[in-house]
Formats: sequence, structure tokens, C-alpha cells
Amino acid sequence: MDIARIVELNAVYARAIDTEQFEEWPRLFHDPCLYKVTTADNVAKGMESGLIYADTRGMLEDRISSLRKVNIYEQQRYRHIVGLPVVLGQANGAAETETPFLIVRIMRDGKMEVFATGCYRDKVRLDAANTPRFAERIVICDGGRFDTLVAIPF
Amino acid sequence: MDIARIVELNAVYARAIDTEQFEEWPRLFHDPCLYKVTTADNVAKGMESGLIYADTRGMLEDRISSLRKVNIYEQQRYRHIVGLPVVLGQANGAAETETPFLIVRIMRDGKMEVFATGCYRDKVRLDAANTPRFAERIVICDGGRFDTLVAIPF
Amino acid sequence: MDIARIVELNAVYARAIDTEQFEEWPRLFHDPCLYKVTTADNVAKGMESGLIYADTRGMLEDRISSLRKVNIYEQQRYRHIVGLPVVLGQANGAAETETPFLIVRIMRDGKMEVFATGCYRDKVRLDAANTPRFAERIVICDGGRFDTLVAIPF
Repeated sequence: MDIARIVELNAVYARAIDTEQFEEWPRLFHDPCLYKVTTADNVAKGMESGLIYADTRGMLEDRISSLRKVNIYEQQRYRHIVGLPVVLGQANGAAETETPFLIVRIMRDGKMEVFATGCYRDKVRLDAANTPRFAERIVICDGGRFDTLVAIPF
Repeated sequence: MDIARIVELNAVYARAIDTEQFEEWPRLFHDPCLYKVTTADNVAKGMESGLIYADTRGMLEDRISSLRKVNIYEQQRYRHIVGLPVVLGQANGAAETETPFLIVRIMRDGKMEVFATGCYRDKVRLDAANTPRFAERIVICDGGRFDTLVAIPF
Repeated sequence: MDIARIVELNAVYARAIDTEQFEEWPRLFHDPCLYKVTTADNVAKGMESGLIYADTRGMLEDRISSLRKVNIYEQQRYRHIVGLPVVLGQANGAAETETPFLIVRIMRDGKMEVFATGCYRDKVRLDAANTPRFAERIVICDGGRFDTLVAIPF
């Protein structure tokens, strides 16, 4: 798969979250899929379980519905800065890539802070309409102190 | 328009500011043009006016002249990290794109802080010499507490 | 040289450091080479000497050996966010480029801070196997308060 298409998928992903068009987010995945948020420490220790886990588009949609009900995201804003992907390999029609990210949180009063950094470890495959989507997105955070119950997608 | 050229224009824009070659900055726009700095809050409320507004290259040049006179920029340094553009559409020969950014401010004593985040909402058109320039650049800041009188270009 | 290959080299470079595969780092350079870490202030004053200096791959390898012995890097993690390169020119088969970067440091307790920002001023040439490597990488930090004795590669 052309790397330009992977870059584009990453850009669209970040924009869907930062513009709070959360309902667009599940559509960027295949169904079934794997979406997991974990930490570099957990990965280093071989711990498989994540802080957040979903393996269908329905589970991703449920997450967004909950988020909309809690409404807590309205008190802050997020900004993803996504770096350049490294292609690790191609297997079974999927490109395996790793892409660094930085998320800044902007509070209502204008205060800004680095909220999270890490890398996305992805498997990207084309769907029937030739659109690239995530078969897997494992979000590996460098640190790890998040209130994952009410978190926006990473 | 090829996305690589839009990426390149963004990279040149950031470099002109961060290397303090401010006089290069107006040349990256068409004349007339639209350059506006606003906030996500203002955009959400439908407020049209911006914190900074210019619609000719001359107005952009005036801004730089003032900045050079005040000289306040010498007390700090800025670093733009520009993310990946999303192409929203093509109309009248212009590509409409949205590109996230992060600006770090570095004080004279070495202290660093996230100064601003947001996205650029742009219309990019080729000029007569086939060089891409901004017909419009609307800078939408996520937060909004800036001393815009003495601010460097965003 | 195709800019996509320069982008790829930058992405691989950042990943080698952030995943602590430090031994991969010297291989991204030609031998001999030039690797220098300096500050924007030093460059502006015409000071040639850097905080860190190496001109062979062996010197880069020595740096990594020392780092592995001191082991201090284990107490924190780093995340590079590398921006978009500007191609400044092509000379003697080398592309001269400038690429902005931001490094976040993540402490063991999860605290995150902007550690360094700056730009890479590079000369990139293909090796005999047609792989792009750095003939020169001059790291120009915007600020300048680092303990360079124990620093990871920038």
C-alpha cells in the first residue's frame, strides 16, 4: 500500500477526534477490528491486556455514545500532532506501520499541557471500496495515568 | 494539486517564521489574500471577526515592519511543528485543506512551553509561475490568550 | 533524491531512539560523517564547536556504549515528533534539508515535559546499496540546557 494513503488515514483520524466528529471515528476501522490502548511499560512486561479494548466497530460506537452522554469532553479540547509513519512490513494485504503521536490538552481557561505521547502500532488494509482502514490500531502510550472511563479516543 | 506541494508550502511557511526570516512570510500568500487568526470558540459561535486580519500582501508586510520595530520577538524563539494536511476539497483551482499545528515558545533562559495549538484552514492556489501560495489561511487556535499586538505570525 | 526517502530516514531515526534501539542509530550515518549538537545561539554567534561532536561511525557507537553503561536512560523515555523537511538544495549527490523536531521527555512517574525543540540541518546521500544515510546531521537546539554527558541521541 502506498505510504501516502497511510499518512492520509492518520491525518483523517486525528482530525475526526480534534474536531469532535467522534461518530466518524469507528468508520475508520474494519469490522471486526482490534483497538487497544496500552502503555509502553505493559508492552515491555508482555502484558496483553489494555486500558481500553474493542474488537468490533459496534464496541467503538458504544464508546462514543457513552462519551456523548457524559459530555465531559466539552470541558477541554485536544490536539493530535501525528508524526511520520515507519512501515515495518506487509503481510496478508495489510501494511504494518508504527507512527508516533503527541496529544495536547487545552483546558477551558486556555491552559495547555502535553496530555499523552506514544506510538500507534497499526495494521492497515484496504476495504472493498479500496479505502484504507485500520484492521488493528494499538495505541502504546509512553506514560500511563489516564482516566480511561471518560477519555476521548486516543 | 499534489498534496506533496501543499506539505512543502507548509514546511516553508513554518521555517520562514522559526528562522525569523519574517520578510519571506508575506510572499507565501497571493495578493489579495485572506489571513485571519481566530479561535475555535469564535468559529463555533459563528463570530466572523478575528484577532488578526489581513487581506492584502501589503497588510502582511506592514505587520512584519511593526514587528521588526518593536523587536520584542528577540526575547524568545518559536518552533512550529506542523502535522499532516487533510484535503477537504478542490474548488476553483484551489485546494481546501486543514492542517494541525503546535507552536512551542522558547524563552531566553531556555524555558519551553506549548504556546499555541490549532489548525490552519487553507485555500492553496498556484500562481502564474506554478508556485503554490495561500489564497486563504485561517488560523484557528484551540485556546485563546495571546498578545496579538506583538505576536509573530502564527 | 526523492523527498519521500528523506522523510522515511527521519522517521526511522526517531523510532530507533524512541524504542531505545540505540545500536541502530550509528548505522543511519555514513562513515565518516558529521554529527553535531549545538544551539541556535551558538550558530548565530558563528561558534563552530558543538555540545556533542562525532565524525566517524565509531564515535557514534562509543557514545551508545557509554549510554548503555550509565543506564541513566532507563529512568525516562523520550518521544520525537519530527516535522516536515524543507529541501534547501542538492550538491555533490547530497540533498541538503532542514527538518524541525520536538522531543518530549516522559519521567517514570508519568510526568511529561517538552525536553528540546530545534531543527536538523542535514546532508543526506545514498550509500552503495542505494539506502539514504546522513553524511551530516547538525542538531540545532532552540534552547540549550542539557546534560550532554548522559544524553540520548537527539
